[in-house]
Amino acid sequence: MNLDREQTPSGQFFFTKLAEDGAARRGRIDMPRGSIRTPAFMPVGTAGTVKAMYLDQVRDLGADIILGNTYHLMLRPGAERVARLGGLHDFARWPYPILTDSGGFQVMSLSGLRKITEEGVTFQSHVDGTKHFMSPERSIEIQGLLDSDIQMQLDECIALPAEEKEIGRAMELSLRWAERCKAAFGDQPGKAMFGIIQGGDNARLRIESAEALAALDLKGYAIGGLAVGEPQNVMFDMIETVIPSMPKDRPRYLMGVGTPDDILGSVQRGVDMFDCVMPTRAGRHGLAFTRHGKINLKNARHAEDDRPLDEESDCAAARDYSRAYLHHLVRAGEPLAGMLLTWNNLAYYQQLMAGIRAAISEARLQEHAEKVRAAWAKGDLPPRS
Amino acid sequence: MNLDREQTPSGQFFFTKLAEDGAARRGRIDMPRGSIRTPAFMPVGTAGTVKAMYLDQVRDLGADIILGNTYHLMLRPGAERVARLGGLHDFARWPYPILTDSGGFQVMSLSGLRKITEEGVTFQSHVDGTKHFMSPERSIEIQGLLDSDIQMQLDECIALPAEEKEIGRAMELSLRWAERCKAAFGDQPGKAMFGIIQGGDNARLRIESAEALAALDLKGYAIGGLAVGEPQNVMFDMIETVIPSMPKDRPRYLMGVGTPDDILGSVQRGVDMFDCVMPTRAGRHGLAFTRHGKINLKNARHAEDDRPLDEESDCAAARDYSRAYLHHLVRAGEPLAGMLLTWNNLAYYQQLMAGIRAAISEARLQEHAEKVRAAWAKGDLPPRS
Repeated sequence: MNLDREQTPSGQFFFTKLAEDGAARRGRIDMPRGSIRTPAFMPVGTAGTVKAMYLDQVRDLGADIILGNTYHLMLRPGAERVARLGGLHDFARWPYPILTDSGGFQVMSLSGLRKITEEGVTFQSHVDGTKHFMSPERSIEIQGLLDSDIQMQLDECIALPAEEKEIGRAMELSLRWAERCKAAFGDQPGKAMFGIIQGGDNARLRIESAEALAALDLKGYAIGGLAVGEPQNVMFDMIETVIPSMPKDRPRYLMGVGTPDDILGSVQRGVDMFDCVMPTRAGRHGLAFTRHGKINLKNARHAEDDRPLDEESDCAAARDYSRAYLHHLVRAGEPLAGMLLTWNNLAYYQQLMAGIRAAISEARLQEHAEKVRAAWAKGDLPPRS
Repeated sequence: MNLDREQTPSGQFFFTKLAEDGAARRGRIDMPRGSIRTPAFMPVGTAGTVKAMYLDQVRDLGADIILGNTYHLMLRPGAERVARLGGLHDFARWPYPILTDSGGFQVMSLSGLRKITEEGVTFQSHVDGTKHFMSPERSIEIQGLLDSDIQMQLDECIALPAEEKEIGRAMELSLRWAERCKAAFGDQPGKAMFGIIQGGDNARLRIESAEALAALDLKGYAIGGLAVGEPQNVMFDMIETVIPSMPKDRPRYLMGVGTPDDILGSVQRGVDMFDCVMPTRAGRHGLAFTRHGKINLKNARHAEDDRPLDEESDCAAARDYSRAYLHHLVRAGEPLAGMLLTWNNLAYYQQLMAGIRAAISEARLQEHAEKVRAAWAKGDLPPRS
């Protein structure tokens, strides 16, 4: 299953579509640090570490790329410090591609006292209260100091519901920031800077954003500002609305999404890349994702169940440890609980993506998706009698 | 270095002395579940897990045996439950020898409202406040339900300083409990029940306890009630006092000890087995044990130090990750900090034991100990200039 991962680096960022199946695409991004098989799930490595995992494990599970959070890394350990230490790849021991967000989303959601102007955003660190300023240029500078392979434009992501006028203002500001980020990024053949489509739940604004960004001829495009609490059908509607205005020959990245079902549905609508804290965060809270659906290991039904989460999995965490043991570890608050369940969850997400990619290649995604959803709907194994 | 680990199980608990060097002994305990090379360090797996480690890693580092805490396991998940699930080895996926303490020490140190009588101890769970009663017989029963390979007698370990009369009373009660534990344990050729020498810091009582226990002809003997806050020289004095009264042909286990220096000094005085939470607990608090001594990764001096903890170590945690990265993980409270530092610390403890065993075999322990202590005293590498 990994045979198509290793490509001779061309020295250039290059996206190849390998197959199409309905709106879904199977592809590959080649970059100097490695290839990314799409549709791809990118595990979130917030602060230079995928929580409760060794990065060797993350790689072994099939991850071609991980995500780093610019906001967290600029505050601790600091972008200049990471640069002095050889960049994020050396620092965290991940020699493969890394995508960084712009920092904007977490400035909005985590920091205190923030103020947005045309120039950028001033905010207070949630770590130590220090004041910081981030402009589109500074965001790109920081992502460059981290030596990020795929960098994201600074954007303004507003909470929904919101007035059309306010959504439009933030979308237009994000567009102007995209131009400034493009200029700041300049010409870096082996790396990419992606634009981010905004426009909330407003179809007209979304299309306007997508078309204006397409005109900037960027190497990839993200859909931002979704999965922020709206129902899944609203998210899917917005994806369907915006995809026709997105260049067909560029990777499409749906930011911060999502559940396995969100991912499957979004791939079927033409999305190529995903990231989400869900598998890692849920793993630290006793929740396991499996082909039987989501399993809450805190539940007393598992207390004497000697069966593994999934005996057919090739992930040791899913296959070799009993539910009774996992239940005990979760109840006792043991570090190994988060280690095993995060491992299981990231394995499941990568298995999901591998299955999706294989199905697209063989033009049977619809049938595959129905089987996968039926297994989720059937739910977990019946209790041990 | 592991060549002497795997022995054909004889079906019997058997201790073989392989070499002596001064008071120090190099030996091997053979049991149906595997052999234990002594002097041995037993990582503490309190609740059926060595915190922040996969047990596969613990084994790969060279651990022949781990310790489980009866107190914790009886309260959660419960001894009967573990028995229904096939015993602690299956439950935790550790098919090698396990030693369990009696539960007594933690009843005294962790539980609420406890009351000791001749019959046993009544106490309240620190987990959920439920009331429990533990007698010598119940302790052995629980350890049997866990399927523990080396079981410890229930004893009363009192805090020092204490009146001689009080120390004597607790020591004599512990002796009577040893007899009851021996009777409850019965004849189990492949397992062992160890007695525990008590007597505080009182030489006469210690010797009396050791001699009375020796008369019980147990398979092994522990020195309990030390490393409870007294200076190292007091502990060493008590070891020297009591060792001549301990059978030469039985393993000697110093409970809850200790720092690398405590272990080295105790081996030189004739101790064969150790357990301590220090390497695991310290690892979760940003402290690394190395051949350069103890290193506090929280310290700002490491913030931009791209050197590993110990480039000569064969442990990846010590060799492959920069101090700067470890410092960052510790400061950010990342799970990987505890995972890597615990890994490093258990690796160092096992390397220490392997070095000690090799030195005894070659009758150069004194010289080896001086070199090891000189490296600790020299301290950590000078700061990166």
